Amino acid sequence: MIIALSGGVGGAKLALGLSRIMPPENLLVVVNTGDDFEHLGLSISPDIDTVTYTLAGLANRELGWGRHDETWSFMATLEALGGETWFRLGDHDVALHVERTRRLKAGESLSAVTADFCRRLGVGPLVLPMTDDPVRTRLLTEHGWLDFQEYFVHRRCEPVVSELQFQGAGAARPHPDFIAALADEALEAVVICPSNPFISVEPILAIPGVREAMMACKAPIIAVSPIIAGRAVKGPTAKMMTELGLDPSAGTVAHRYAELLDGYVIDHADMSEVVSIDARVTLAQTLMTTIEDREALARIVVEAAATLRRRELRGLRHRGQR
Amino acid sequence: MIIALSGGVGGAKLALGLSRIMPPENLLVVVNTGDDFEHLGLSISPDIDTVTYTLAGLANRELGWGRHDETWSFMATLEALGGETWFRLGDHDVALHVERTRRLKAGESLSAVTADFCRRLGVGPLVLPMTDDPVRTRLLTEHGWLDFQEYFVHRRCEPVVSELQFQGAGAARPHPDFIAALADEALEAVVICPSNPFISVEPILAIPGVREAMMACKAPIIAVSPIIAGRAVKGPTAKMMTELGLDPSAGTVAHRYAELLDGYVIDHADMSEVVSIDARVTLAQTLMTTIEDREALARIVVEAAATLRRRELRGLRHRGQR
Repeated sequence: MIIALSGGVGGAKLALGLSRIMPPENLLVVVNTGDDFEHLGLSISPDIDTVTYTLAGLANRELGWGRHDETWSFMATLEALGGETWFRLGDHDVALHVERTRRLKAGESLSAVTADFCRRLGVGPLVLPMTDDPVRTRLLTEHGWLDFQEYFVHRRCEPVVSELQFQGAGAARPHPDFIAALADEALEAVVICPSNPFISVEPILAIPGVREAMMACKAPIIAVSPIIAGRAVKGPTAKMMTELGLDPSAGTVAHRYAELLDGYVIDHADMSEVVSIDARVTLAQTLMTTIEDREALARIVVEAAATLRRRELRGLRHRGQR
Repeated sequence: MIIALSGGVGGAKLALGLSRIMPPENLLVVVNTGDDFEHLGLSISPDIDTVTYTLAGLANRELGWGRHDETWSFMATLEALGGETWFRLGDHDVALHVERTRRLKAGESLSAVTADFCRRLGVGPLVLPMTDDPVRTRLLTEHGWLDFQEYFVHRRCEPVVSELQFQGAGAARPHPDFIAALADEALEAVVICPSNPFISVEPILAIPGVREAMMACKAPIIAVSPIIAGRAVKGPTAKMMTELGLDPSAGTVAHRYAELLDGYVIDHADMSEVVSIDARVTLAQTLMTTIEDREALARIVVEAAATLRRRELRGLRHRGQR
């Protein structure tokens, strides 16, 4: 069994790669829900949906969100009626939000609804929200505190970020299946996907008990850098690092996860970078353009984990804390 | 100024005819909201939407509901996700329900939202819900009491109806603009459109104050029969009459409205029928297939009203009660 921690697009790509080189039902994708929000009265979970659509083969690769077979009548009429149109919702997509909202209001958990949707859409891996409790990422900017989607979509990541907050994280409970999987003897690796550390991975780590369970986990923890040659493949990771006074580099990301990491996969472009962390570094092509790229990177991650497990058997574990 | 009382399809057709033979802004269409319901968490007002779409030139004439330019991605995905699909919602249509639901939850009235949607969709006449308070038509059948849409759409009007109930009507307040228009000196006619009396018109008449305001209204009240030669053009009107122990005829409809009527328009096919009511009967082609049919019937109704106003001036009013 492998656990993958994921945000949206980048994480979903590697999760898809993993799902294609292993029995998909042995893959548990734990997804950030800090991006979730209520919009037009609908409960929207952008990262869960990106992961679900990607694993179902429904993702729109051009847009980087939504479905590839989408139609846009809903949006056209919403605009004609004077509704808010900054968050684009396709006709297929909105059905998922309406039905999820209905089921959540009827008392089902986000994880139960997600699992059922995944089953119906033919998704093999288990897609698990990091928590069933509400966590909302907020960002302090020159315009004050902004809700995540207000910053991310409405303002196109243009405001300068000086601080992040994961509202509700302190009171949230990690999903019990996540914690149980971390303690499972059969666990082969925990993969921190190449997602934005600040807004995709750290909300997961901010939930009480997650960091401790990861530290106690016997399987190797391997992150894949979302930064290649100082730039993010997509999204505001590098911009945000600069704004937070950090060097936009693969090394900076490693340091965010430092004590958790046994292995770290960086791009060949970053081979000259000094990654002064106590983890085994693997070079790879981390840019995932084709499906073959996704599978190849997934294989490298799985092999790095196998190597780390062998080293562990020889008493060469890196994570000194455990 | 003319007031038209309307349910869905049949009423909307005549309202459209009226709007094309008079300054549309002088037409007030008061619409039944007893069909309204909450479905998938959305507030749906089927009669208001049929009237709005018809007057906006957006109605789907083949289906008899929804929009002619509709797409169906929402429904396809709702079905794929295991959602309830017995009430068909097109992609354009669902945007209206989502935005209306959002605005109602934000505290706006149904009438304010409807007026704004109509303005944005280029509807000339004022479309007014009979009330901003919730009224829900329910039907007693061999399966017990059924909600209206459960009976009408889900069970395709198949259950045998023995009783009707307009839940909430007793506590509802008629829309003040409706009551004010009935008392307006400039009012030329009140037209009871050829809608189902039991489920479209009587919910309007059931709201405290409406019947009294209509009785006190100085303009002639003219109904158009929804029954032609013992059959309804569309919907369960005739079937329901039989089930309620009534003769399915234009005469039966007239008797439902009896004390309110000054004029009654029936089809040529019913000319031999004895309509023993105290109202002036006009023969017309009441089947509205083309747009010309709608306009022609509207003209006949308006002319019948003019005749009744002239008779009133000569002291020949029919409604003895006033």
